[in-house]
Amino acid sequence: MKRKSFREAECPVARSLDAIGDWWSLLIVRDAFDGIKRFSEFQQNLGIAKGMLTARLRDLVEAGVFDLAPASDGSAYREYVLTEKGQRLFLIIVAMRQWGEEHLYRPDEPRSVLVDANAGDPVSRLELSASNGRKLAWTDTRIVAARP
Amino acid sequence: MKRKSFREAECPVARSLDAIGDWWSLLIVRDAFDGIKRFSEFQQNLGIAKGMLTARLRDLVEAGVFDLAPASDGSAYREYVLTEKGQRLFLIIVAMRQWGEEHLYRPDEPRSVLVDANAGDPVSRLELSASNGRKLAWTDTRIVAARP
Repeated sequence: MKRKSFREAECPVARSLDAIGDWWSLLIVRDAFDGIKRFSEFQQNLGIAKGMLTARLRDLVEAGVFDLAPASDGSAYREYVLTEKGQRLFLIIVAMRQWGEEHLYRPDEPRSVLVDANAGDPVSRLELSASNGRKLAWTDTRIVAARP
Repeated sequence: MKRKSFREAECPVARSLDAIGDWWSLLIVRDAFDGIKRFSEFQQNLGIAKGMLTARLRDLVEAGVFDLAPASDGSAYREYVLTEKGQRLFLIIVAMRQWGEEHLYRPDEPRSVLVDANAGDPVSRLELSASNGRKLAWTDTRIVAARP
């Protein structure tokens, strides 16, 4: 089934989802933040079908999220390395993580935690601020439509 | 094709994606933040097939993201209203928006803008902070695996 494309959308949310809004794509990127670089490692960690992983990685390279590089250990493998653009996806992953932490676990359920590597304590919750630093709830915001 | 489920995952990113990680689901939620409440409005705004919209809305109600409520104007329509849990998805949408703004538009391309409704100026970029307020890059963080 050919999906509708939002590649040219005026809404940046739609355009982002068009670029990376696949269930697997964000999990692949999450794994990359955890240090995974090789096809076989992604495949093993995610339990994803090879054909699907090949397609998703190809799309992510095409979207400029990964660069393909020779293996860092000099072997014949190739590695998927997050570009600057890919590294900027971190906040999306963190926002997903924090929503999940808050709403999808029972209190006693084991879950992984994102911590400040230096101090070892959990990172703060993301917050939305105005340009003057005031905290904003979603009801304090509005969308201004595109002016062509 | 039956997809792999991450409903019981120890990683909150995976669990969130399991709950809302569908391309359409986040666009439906985005529309809800813009004030859209009715099936026909979602359908018209997104250009989504009715069967697909029916399935996605059903899943989002099941996931506790929307409540179904009688229409606010007393008509026979029913409206999809974001729950507290659904409203907390706002930061994910904002993170997607900001990544899109930064990486997926040419400088001269028209795009919608999220502003502080009071002051009218664009909201600040989301930032990750340590518990003491220090800004964190992704390289300043690490994941602590779940302890069962």
